[in-house]
Amino acid sequence: MRLAIVGFGLIGGSIARALAARDAGRWHITAWSRSADGPRAALADGAIDVVAPSAAGAVAEAELIVLAASPLANLGLVTEIGPAIAAAGATLSDVTSAQGAMARAAAAVPGLRHVGGHPMAGIEARGYEAARADLFVGRPWIVLPGSAALPDDVARVDELASACGARPVELDPDAHDRLVAAISHLPLVVAAALAETVTGTDAWDGAAPLASGGWRDATRVARGDPDLGAGIAALNRDRLLEWLDRFSTVLDSWRADLAGLPPTPDAPSTEVLRTRFERVRSALEGPGRR
Amino acid sequence: MRLAIVGFGLIGGSIARALAARDAGRWHITAWSRSADGPRAALADGAIDVVAPSAAGAVAEAELIVLAASPLANLGLVTEIGPAIAAAGATLSDVTSAQGAMARAAAAVPGLRHVGGHPMAGIEARGYEAARADLFVGRPWIVLPGSAALPDDVARVDELASACGARPVELDPDAHDRLVAAISHLPLVVAAALAETVTGTDAWDGAAPLASGGWRDATRVARGDPDLGAGIAALNRDRLLEWLDRFSTVLDSWRADLAGLPPTPDAPSTEVLRTRFERVRSALEGPGRR
Repeated sequence: MRLAIVGFGLIGGSIARALAARDAGRWHITAWSRSADGPRAALADGAIDVVAPSAAGAVAEAELIVLAASPLANLGLVTEIGPAIAAAGATLSDVTSAQGAMARAAAAVPGLRHVGGHPMAGIEARGYEAARADLFVGRPWIVLPGSAALPDDVARVDELASACGARPVELDPDAHDRLVAAISHLPLVVAAALAETVTGTDAWDGAAPLASGGWRDATRVARGDPDLGAGIAALNRDRLLEWLDRFSTVLDSWRADLAGLPPTPDAPSTEVLRTRFERVRSALEGPGRR
Repeated sequence: MRLAIVGFGLIGGSIARALAARDAGRWHITAWSRSADGPRAALADGAIDVVAPSAAGAVAEAELIVLAASPLANLGLVTEIGPAIAAAGATLSDVTSAQGAMARAAAAVPGLRHVGGHPMAGIEARGYEAARADLFVGRPWIVLPGSAALPDDVARVDELASACGARPVELDPDAHDRLVAAISHLPLVVAAALAETVTGTDAWDGAAPLASGGWRDATRVARGDPDLGAGIAALNRDRLLEWLDRFSTVLDSWRADLAGLPPTPDAPSTEVLRTRFERVRSALEGPGRR
C-alpha cells in the first residue's frame, strides 16, 4: 500500500514507526512536514521510504493519504490538496480530534473519498523524536466514513489502524465529537483553567514546591502542545461549550453542598460529600472503565 | 523515641515502614486502629513493636503521638485523647490535610503541646497493605507548631519527618490551608465534578471505552478514599470555596473566549486560545515546578 503521511509529528511519526516495526513489507511510506526534520530523521531510521518535497508531491501516486498535521492545518489541507486526491481516486484520511469540521470540509470537495480517523492514544510529548511504534497498540482507532467513501476506502483505513495494532471502531462525526468533547476536550479546558486559577495568584510561589503527584496528574493534559489544544477547542467549540455548561452546573452543586455544611463539620453532616465521592469512584472504576 | 501511631492506614503504615527500613534502632512504635488489621500485619512484618488495645492505651508512655486516621477522626481524637497527652507532657502531631481546624481543636485543650504535620505525598491506594517505606522520600513534610508547643516538640516532629526521608517545611495553619486548598483540595473537587459531568450522562457508555490516559490522569485524584475526600473538603471548606469561586471565574472566561470564535475558526482567530495554552504550559513547567 502506497501511504502518504502529510504533517509528521508524534502521531504521524508513530504511525510510520508502527508500520515499520509490525508490517514493513506491506507499506511504502512517503512523508512530508513543513520543517522536513521529522521525515528526514524517519528516513534515516528506516521508518519511511521517501521524504516528499511538498504536500502536493507527497500525495502524488499515493493510494492512502493521512493528514497528521495540527487540527487547523489538517482542515486547511483538505481544501488545498483534496481536489488532487479526488482526481486521483485516492483515499483521504486524517488523525484529527474534531471530525465534524473535517467531514464538512471534505464533503465540499466533489468526489473526495474521505474516511476520517482518530486514534485514541496520545502523550504530552511532541514531534517525531517522541514517536513510538507501540503508541496505538490495543487502543480504539475511530473510523468515520464520509458520504463519498467506498467500501474499499473504509477497508484501507481499517487496515492502517489494524496494522498499527489498534482496534477500528466506526462512528459518525456528530457522535464522535460529542464523546471526545466529554472525555478529552472538556478535561483539557478544565485542566487549563485549573492551572490558570492557581498559577495566576501570589499563592503559586509557595504552593508549587508543595505540589505532589495529584497536582501533576490533574494538570497533565494542559501541558501538551498549545497549537493542538487551541485547534481542538476551536474546531469542536459547540460540543465543548455544551459540556462546559453542564460542568459548571455540576460544579455549582458542589459549591452548594460545601456551603451548606455546619461550621464544625462532623461525620453525619459530611455524609452528602462522602456519598458523592463514593459514587464518583464507582462510576469511574466500573467494569471496562479506565 | 517512643512513638504512637493512632489510626493506621496508608500514611501511618508508610511512616512505620519508613522508620523500620531507614532508622530502626531509634524508634519504638506502638500502633492502634479501629479494626486492628493494619497494626497486626505491621507487627508480623516487624514494622512496629506493639499493637495497642485502644487509642488511649497507644498514647500511654509515648513521647510523640501521631494521629493518622481520617481527617474527621483525627479532629475528634484531639478532643478525646488530647487531655491525657497534655497531662503526660508528650508531643501530639498528626498527618491531616486541613490544619486550621486541627490547630483550633488543639488550642482548646489546656497545655496540649501540638505540632501539626502534613507530609505532601500520597497515592490513591488505601490501607497498610499499600504502605511504602519510600512514600515520603524527598517530599516536603509541612510542620505547624501550635501555641503551646516547645522547641523540643518541634524538634521531635522534624526528626520524624527527616527519619522518613522527607524535608520538614514550617508553615502556619492559615498559609497551609490556603496553599493546599489550591494544589490539592481544589483539584480533588474539580476532578470529582468532571467525572460526575460525564459519567452521569448517556454519553458515558459510548465514551468510556474510548477514554485514554488523559481522562484517567484528569480524574485520578477523584478515585481515592471517599472518607478522606469528604473530610478534607469539609474541614477546609472556607478556603476551598474561595478557590472554587476563583476557578469558576476563570472557567467563565474560557467559555467567553470559545463563544467569541468565528463560525469557521482559523489560526488568527484561535491565537487567543493558543496563547492561553502556551502560558499555562510555561507556568506549570517553570523551574522548580512539578
